Amino acid sequence: MSKLEDIVSLCKRRGFIFPGSDVYGGMAGTWDFGPLGVMLKKNIMDAWWHYFVEKRDDMYGIDAAIIMNPKTWVASGHAATFADPLVECKECKSRFRADKIADGITESVTTEEFLALHVKCPTCGKENWGPIRKFNMMFTTHVGAVLPEDTKENPELAEKNIAYLRPETAQGIFTNYKNVIDTFYPSLPFGLAQQGKAFRNEISPRDFILRDRECSQMEIEYFVAPNTWEENFEKMRKAQHDFLENVIGLPAKNIHELEVPKEDRAHYSKRTIDFMFDYPNGEEELMGLAYRTDFDLSNIERESGKSMEYRDKNTKEVFIPHVIEPSIGVERLFLAVLSNAYTEDEINGEKRTVLKLPQSLAPYQFCVSPLLKNKPELVEKAQQVYQALKEKYGNVTWDDSGNIGKRYRKQDEIGTPKCVVIDFETLENDTVTIRDRDTTDQIRKSISEL
Amino acid sequence: MSKLEDIVSLCKRRGFIFPGSDVYGGMAGTWDFGPLGVMLKKNIMDAWWHYFVEKRDDMYGIDAAIIMNPKTWVASGHAATFADPLVECKECKSRFRADKIADGITESVTTEEFLALHVKCPTCGKENWGPIRKFNMMFTTHVGAVLPEDTKENPELAEKNIAYLRPETAQGIFTNYKNVIDTFYPSLPFGLAQQGKAFRNEISPRDFILRDRECSQMEIEYFVAPNTWEENFEKMRKAQHDFLENVIGLPAKNIHELEVPKEDRAHYSKRTIDFMFDYPNGEEELMGLAYRTDFDLSNIERESGKSMEYRDKNTKEVFIPHVIEPSIGVERLFLAVLSNAYTEDEINGEKRTVLKLPQSLAPYQFCVSPLLKNKPELVEKAQQVYQALKEKYGNVTWDDSGNIGKRYRKQDEIGTPKCVVIDFETLENDTVTIRDRDTTDQIRKSISEL
Repeated sequence: MSKLEDIVSLCKRRGFIFPGSDVYGGMAGTWDFGPLGVMLKKNIMDAWWHYFVEKRDDMYGIDAAIIMNPKTWVASGHAATFADPLVECKECKSRFRADKIADGITESVTTEEFLALHVKCPTCGKENWGPIRKFNMMFTTHVGAVLPEDTKENPELAEKNIAYLRPETAQGIFTNYKNVIDTFYPSLPFGLAQQGKAFRNEISPRDFILRDRECSQMEIEYFVAPNTWEENFEKMRKAQHDFLENVIGLPAKNIHELEVPKEDRAHYSKRTIDFMFDYPNGEEELMGLAYRTDFDLSNIERESGKSMEYRDKNTKEVFIPHVIEPSIGVERLFLAVLSNAYTEDEINGEKRTVLKLPQSLAPYQFCVSPLLKNKPELVEKAQQVYQALKEKYGNVTWDDSGNIGKRYRKQDEIGTPKCVVIDFETLENDTVTIRDRDTTDQIRKSISEL
Repeated sequence: MSKLEDIVSLCKRRGFIFPGSDVYGGMAGTWDFGPLGVMLKKNIMDAWWHYFVEKRDDMYGIDAAIIMNPKTWVASGHAATFADPLVECKECKSRFRADKIADGITESVTTEEFLALHVKCPTCGKENWGPIRKFNMMFTTHVGAVLPEDTKENPELAEKNIAYLRPETAQGIFTNYKNVIDTFYPSLPFGLAQQGKAFRNEISPRDFILRDRECSQMEIEYFVAPNTWEENFEKMRKAQHDFLENVIGLPAKNIHELEVPKEDRAHYSKRTIDFMFDYPNGEEELMGLAYRTDFDLSNIERESGKSMEYRDKNTKEVFIPHVIEPSIGVERLFLAVLSNAYTEDEINGEKRTVLKLPQSLAPYQFCVSPLLKNKPELVEKAQQVYQALKEKYGNVTWDDSGNIGKRYRKQDEIGTPKCVVIDFETLENDTVTIRDRDTTDQIRKSISEL
């Protein structure tokens, strides 16, 4: 098995991540977080929120609805351009993303260019293609009293009530810029931050949680005076490294900045750095930092007819702020954390799997267990220690299954930094064995020192 | 203005809740949480998670995808029965929920019953109705390479790829029951808890955030041995009261248990208690506690062909567990908290609005400000106090706008329990004025005592 397959397997075996709708044979491109995954995900998201929002004086939180007025996606450009090239085999009716079944073409391939390549259908092997059609990756739905048959019998009504699941959280921030300006009167630069779900109808979801149809994003739109964008971009770039390396614990050597060349940048961006990470299957985008200029606010101003101008309290200057946007997918960060933590080593000739998670992110700080399960005096004492630690630290687990070696192996696999074992000596002198996850060293300590 | 209108106004004015997609003229039934709303909502959700999941040994978290395999909704009954009666005026094409434009009928009204009432169209005043049609409240979408024109030209493909936005978080839990059983081997009783978004395509959303199209739910499915359901139901009932009254701070006198009679219960429930709350506009459901029997797991077993049986480790008995479900909407709880906190009183002959939020839920614990903004020595000292308190408590705000009276009124409106003011005496003896939100009393305290 590849390392990625090992991680997928561990995630399922230990209850971090299950395939979505598993019991019904799945739902491609969706994943469900199990009990340990919820804890790790929450720790990652809370760490981000604390670092970028709570600790700072220049950030405000937003939590916007997923279903937005469709004008949002006209203004943002998603309605027109958020599309992949779809091609259908006329023989077997299979559909593909054209640029994924032929080499050397991009998303902007034309029908003529594609046909010239003489690609065979991956399903039936024939070569009989329909035209390339633009497939918009936004999920479509209808809001209000539209019946399924209306899409056929009453298409105007259906069209009028169309809505989309947001493909990014960013627009939920931009559309609230004016609300925040009018209620909090913030000085520039200031940022609006949001954590929430976004949806992309990928034709072929793949790579575990890296390219899923439903993901959680953490985005900041940082509003700055136009002539200060470069210094703020630089500050934000450094803040991303500080967060990823010193809060999340990813090694600097595995993070690579990719200065995205003009021709590859999104239409709204004048500068973009992709932060690439060394995932098990190779280098992949972990997050992006983009200078979006006044693209979004200007489009909103045009589409809504409402002024997005900002009046500087000191200089009295009036302008539309420019925007620096750090954007990160929770699942991408989650997988980076797991990839970095996942380790196979050998202890006294025995192979083991261990998740070397940073202590602040590990689902459990401690595991408490009695050396023997069938000795009531040990169990009782261990329960006392467990309850006291749980009261103090919150995320503490109890394990009295199997033998002690088996418990250690399980706690190693879920990344618990310390195992506390209550044995007969504990009953005599109130000391316990503390076993370290990474070194497997065991030391004795007094309970009061925990 | 009614009290509810006052609350809606305060929410918008102070940045708790804005109408969704406000800048584009809105999106009916959606609401965006602003900076203070995000903080209050997070405090409420974290309090629930801490009380029901982290503190307990018998609870596991789940975070399932919103888009699930459509079989989920066949098994749960939503595909067949989660519907409202829709009627269309043939004259003006307006559509209504039949039971909302006529008195004395329920959701199960037939066309004949409705026509016999001779209702006039609320839009055009005529009486020329089409038949009653069942309108399913689940939002529909298509997953995978389905083009908009496929709903007309290729309806089979569109039908095959149909999916729904989950109308409740509960099914994301039930579909993961087996995954948790197979990875954690929990003993009965145990619970699976989830917080997340759910979507209902209400024909006429109304009552602010009480009946919105997109809401956040907090649900627990608590699995028990069938013959223990009554005692576990009772324990869970008491836990709900403890949480609502002692953690969230809602007065017991405003919470009323409504034992739902058989004919009004959901099809799956053998006992349901609705916890009603005295909202500003009257008594409304705050949360529900339902005994769902083995309805869901049995349906999943039938639809998936996979055994949902549980083998008791001690008795070796094999059975499908029964389920107790406490279910609460975050927005409903949020509005209950606001309604309870919202107070208009008079201080020294001056009217004021104050949010008497419990300290643990308030967006900010403290507001720190210098008495005068134009005295650098006061500002500098106040900044020191602010930074120290922020380091210690996290949620602390700074305010140097307007005069001190204006600041107090603002902090009262957003529910900040204590205002700390740095004045000239502070520079002499390191004491500050602490002003209490509820009593408006001011005391002097040494900075080190804060």
